[in-house]
Amino acid sequence: MHILITGAAGMIGRKLTARLVAAGGIGGRAIEALTLLDVVEPAAPAGFGGRVVTRAADLSADGEPARAVAERPDLIFHLAAIVSGEAEADFDKGYRINLDGTRMLFDAIRHLSADGYRPRMVFTSSIAVFGAPFPPAIGDDFALTPLTSYGTQKAIDELLLADYSRRGFMDGIGIRLPTICIRPGAPNKAASGFFSGILREPLAGQEAVLPVDEDVRHWHASPRAAVGFLMHGAEIDLAPLGARRSLSMPGLSATVGEQIAALRRVAGDRAASLIRRVPDPTVAAIVAGWPRNFDPQRALALGFRAETSFDEIIRVHIEDELGGRLPS
Amino acid sequence: MHILITGAAGMIGRKLTARLVAAGGIGGRAIEALTLLDVVEPAAPAGFGGRVVTRAADLSADGEPARAVAERPDLIFHLAAIVSGEAEADFDKGYRINLDGTRMLFDAIRHLSADGYRPRMVFTSSIAVFGAPFPPAIGDDFALTPLTSYGTQKAIDELLLADYSRRGFMDGIGIRLPTICIRPGAPNKAASGFFSGILREPLAGQEAVLPVDEDVRHWHASPRAAVGFLMHGAEIDLAPLGARRSLSMPGLSATVGEQIAALRRVAGDRAASLIRRVPDPTVAAIVAGWPRNFDPQRALALGFRAETSFDEIIRVHIEDELGGRLPS
Repeated sequence: MHILITGAAGMIGRKLTARLVAAGGIGGRAIEALTLLDVVEPAAPAGFGGRVVTRAADLSADGEPARAVAERPDLIFHLAAIVSGEAEADFDKGYRINLDGTRMLFDAIRHLSADGYRPRMVFTSSIAVFGAPFPPAIGDDFALTPLTSYGTQKAIDELLLADYSRRGFMDGIGIRLPTICIRPGAPNKAASGFFSGILREPLAGQEAVLPVDEDVRHWHASPRAAVGFLMHGAEIDLAPLGARRSLSMPGLSATVGEQIAALRRVAGDRAASLIRRVPDPTVAAIVAGWPRNFDPQRALALGFRAETSFDEIIRVHIEDELGGRLPS
Repeated sequence: MHILITGAAGMIGRKLTARLVAAGGIGGRAIEALTLLDVVEPAAPAGFGGRVVTRAADLSADGEPARAVAERPDLIFHLAAIVSGEAEADFDKGYRINLDGTRMLFDAIRHLSADGYRPRMVFTSSIAVFGAPFPPAIGDDFALTPLTSYGTQKAIDELLLADYSRRGFMDGIGIRLPTICIRPGAPNKAASGFFSGILREPLAGQEAVLPVDEDVRHWHASPRAAVGFLMHGAEIDLAPLGARRSLSMPGLSATVGEQIAALRRVAGDRAASLIRRVPDPTVAAIVAGWPRNFDPQRALALGFRAETSFDEIIRVHIEDELGGRLPS
């Protein structure tokens, strides 16, 4: 089979590519070709014997979506997006990339549907489609109430995914990712960055800043779990979804205090002592509008699984990013 | 104040214009100018002393949205849309008019926001944003789950309205209209047409066809109530809406059997006997996916009101369409 990944140079895109290559196939079919697109040219994966195309492409540019699907990939992972902070800072760019780019990709597929083309589309949405006030746990029927332009764009994409699937242009599933924790790499300026930072930096022997209270609760899953969601969404029968094509994924609802307690158990008091409390009311106000807990019954019934403790999330990071051991 | 109405030549647009002209003002401010747009040029209203512009305009054509708001109307009623059946039959036209046209109008307003322009935007959405399966009564937090392209387009417009309002480009409210009953005029081919037809035709001494069972339940409001929703949405303080800018309107949940019983009470057995039962499984299947009942607490708390019996809905039709009396 031929797989297209948009946003393939991003953190999830690279991990997904590596997992697919390691698996060699998906859904019982061997992977013969990979097309990897991003705004910067993705690296070709090591150890893949099939055909690989890597290309820098802006899916919101005329002609690019048609080119992306011209070879009729059987399976498309559509990860390409600009992040929440940038979509909020640059209104036009956010709508152009996150809404128009996705719609143009979907339309390029639709324009091939007359000859029977109908790919599996695995679309990454986000819990940013939800905004406070919430029930104690957000159920599968809760309204999408985004409080950011990014969340709005993802919610619109979910509606398009459902309508284009209902029309038979694609067989789509929207995967609402929890906040990814522990996000590897350097600290960034995202308001959510501290959720990863307060674990990642101490695990590497570095100081980290905590801008909110320890009772702040949020919804997490590891990068490994996120890639697992995408793989699972590519393999399962989507008929049980009916017309409701997007799912809140399982995750772990935990407070910052619970994160720190897990850090202490896994890496000791010295690691936990590297967290500096520097309250930031701006960050606290943003985080107050974010989801804290879900009741993702549909995804659980379909076999999606995430971590069930922060100890496990930390161990996943140590295994996947730190070579299996803490720096001494 | 200056009021712009898009879709002004439609049934609701004409009634809204007449009501505004009769009132002379809205929200305590006199109406000095009216701009009436539609794909066919709307008629100028009788008895209005202010300035009137009527124009045929396609809001999805380049430059038209900017032209529509160039004079910075204080209040905009955005009713323009193509109907559900046409949006389903013509995919491209539906998205062009119902999504792109609305987004282009919103963007034209946004581009004027730098100088402080921020109009009240009253947008007509629809209960078509909801599709089965449902709870017994659809609450204000229930997810938008459209089963048509029309419902998808309206749901997307609602998301844009909320984001553009949150950003401060407009002060928007989305009004999810119930099915309008009794819709005046000639029978049409809409799947929902029989809900009005089984009352309107017998009240005019004509036969009507009922394609579904009498236990089919649906959600109704009169044209007069619909115009009342739009007027009320233009006047009230929208701060209580917070970021959730669209509201399911009050209405009347009634079965077809209850409609017919009311017809019998108001117009007698002879009128009721004009209904011919001709089951149509296609129509029955479509209607099975439609909302039956709502619990519109937010709208009720904000003072929106609809009819509370079908006798009342029938009397409104007799008063507003039949000169106050039944044909003898």
